[in-house]
Amino acid sequence: MSDIQAYAAMEAGGRLEPYTYNPGALPANHVEVEISACGLCHSDLSMVNNDWGASQYPLVPGHEAVGKISKVGEAVKHLEVGQTVGIGWTSQTCQHCSPCLSGSQQRCTSAVSTIAAKGGFANRIQVQDIWAVPLPDGMDAKSAGPLFCGGITVFAPMMDYGLKPTDRVAVIGIGGLGHLAVQFAHAWGCEVTAFTSSMDKEAELKELGAHHVANSRDAGAMKALRGKFDFIISTVNVDLDWASYLATLRSDGQLITVGAVDKPMGIPAFSLISGGKSVGGSDTGSPDMVARMLEFCTRHNIKPMVEYFPMSDVNDALAHLKSGKARYRIVLTN
Amino acid sequence: MSDIQAYAAMEAGGRLEPYTYNPGALPANHVEVEISACGLCHSDLSMVNNDWGASQYPLVPGHEAVGKISKVGEAVKHLEVGQTVGIGWTSQTCQHCSPCLSGSQQRCTSAVSTIAAKGGFANRIQVQDIWAVPLPDGMDAKSAGPLFCGGITVFAPMMDYGLKPTDRVAVIGIGGLGHLAVQFAHAWGCEVTAFTSSMDKEAELKELGAHHVANSRDAGAMKALRGKFDFIISTVNVDLDWASYLATLRSDGQLITVGAVDKPMGIPAFSLISGGKSVGGSDTGSPDMVARMLEFCTRHNIKPMVEYFPMSDVNDALAHLKSGKARYRIVLTN
Repeated sequence: MSDIQAYAAMEAGGRLEPYTYNPGALPANHVEVEISACGLCHSDLSMVNNDWGASQYPLVPGHEAVGKISKVGEAVKHLEVGQTVGIGWTSQTCQHCSPCLSGSQQRCTSAVSTIAAKGGFANRIQVQDIWAVPLPDGMDAKSAGPLFCGGITVFAPMMDYGLKPTDRVAVIGIGGLGHLAVQFAHAWGCEVTAFTSSMDKEAELKELGAHHVANSRDAGAMKALRGKFDFIISTVNVDLDWASYLATLRSDGQLITVGAVDKPMGIPAFSLISGGKSVGGSDTGSPDMVARMLEFCTRHNIKPMVEYFPMSDVNDALAHLKSGKARYRIVLTN
Repeated sequence: MSDIQAYAAMEAGGRLEPYTYNPGALPANHVEVEISACGLCHSDLSMVNNDWGASQYPLVPGHEAVGKISKVGEAVKHLEVGQTVGIGWTSQTCQHCSPCLSGSQQRCTSAVSTIAAKGGFANRIQVQDIWAVPLPDGMDAKSAGPLFCGGITVFAPMMDYGLKPTDRVAVIGIGGLGHLAVQFAHAWGCEVTAFTSSMDKEAELKELGAHHVANSRDAGAMKALRGKFDFIISTVNVDLDWASYLATLRSDGQLITVGAVDKPMGIPAFSLISGGKSVGGSDTGSPDMVARMLEFCTRHNIKPMVEYFPMSDVNDALAHLKSGKARYRIVLTN
């Protein structure tokens, strides 16, 4: 195998620098993908900064990669060179543990994440065949990357926690994940409320499919929403007044966090007991669920709204992400 | 109607005193029940003490009452004088709100609780017909009372949160509720682990149906249980190290609290996100679910383990409850 040209952080919090590595021989059940575009996710930043204490350097971020297959391993029978595929958070799983065998491969007990191997801020990448999911015909490859992490992260809980088309849904935090959650929930048939602290996004959020936009900083507005929602999906990673959001749930309502909130969530037991409510978490999704999500996006014309940066301007892109001004996802292009 | 002889607290935290009241005319959709026995639940104590700020005095506690119907209102068609029935937390609901119409009458938006009206520490009680649930043939009436609150409180989440016979279940806190949860989960077909800080209960818990008994104060034992359970039901009302219990759940695992924990539960978002776990609450159950529970108890010979006190010794019974030594539920008898 020839060398891969990538961008890596050499230490926690470091700037990304050009970095060349040799991936070695392509494993029999892997494919090699020539990356055309890769989304930039907040988790990339967390991993660069070693916020979760699990980073190893040199660290090549990037886990929303899209491109054409350039080589297939000798055991790979269902993919071929030239196919356009996407790659998300996970790049390798064992296929024999209980989660793998039960269709939740993303929870494989020995999963390897894309970033932990070497990620998608590069010209090529090698991943296990099942984690390279083909794009449906007609899907725009350049903007599709964010679906493979941001998208599946909000799509999976809708599947796993049984969201119904008759439900009233609220989305907390309208960024890279939230703007996709709004589109998904709208296409699902639900009534959708977007919670935001930036009411300047209102018109745009309604265009994305929100029936209502609520100001989360307005205590009066929160009070008026008591007992309204069946399902709340929270994408933020900061602590909120969870009790006040739980009060906006109906009986049997569920609040699902996909944001890695930075301190333990303070959940009053009474808020759960009265009405049989619950607070759940959700990670990403299986390859099969990713494929279903892509099909759903094609059917309903759901697309990430993105801003493009050349891959070589990755540090500028990171600065833009940190500024909180990205609308709504950044994609790096080769 | 003739007067009802009851025991009431006249003020927050007060001793119970003999108290006579006239219930007025029997409403058309109500029945009157001659109480033979009434369980004593920790919520009675909380209500006497006004721990939840909702008590009104004189307050007649008691919401696990069993007895024979002595009168039926003129609109009541499905019950008759002489039938043995039980009464739990709720005594009146509207029958037209969304929870009522969808079979979750216990969540009626204008529910009246048995204690808020006048409870079961009395010789008679009046309740709406649907809240007087007939005992199946052959069920021991004297010991059945605790099923109507303690029992349904742990049975309902098994129904509502989809407990499967193939699941591994843990029960935290083995008291009035927990000793019934162990019996239910065993009869459900599950593998059952009882968490207790009193290992002297071990032999008895195994007799009740626990396959394993774990010492919740032993950090090593907790660590050995990582990733083991599908379903944890917690009956305690004190704060625990929830993160360490969440670590004992498998993927998709659920921790359900039925205990009104005295401070907000500190739930790390990562503990939920990794593995798609959730923390839920549950209150009581609908009349239909109570009936199914009673049928299940009869089929599987599930019985509350109780200690009896004469109704007139209610203050001694309360002192015994406070001591924490009740094994496992106290029942007052007329």
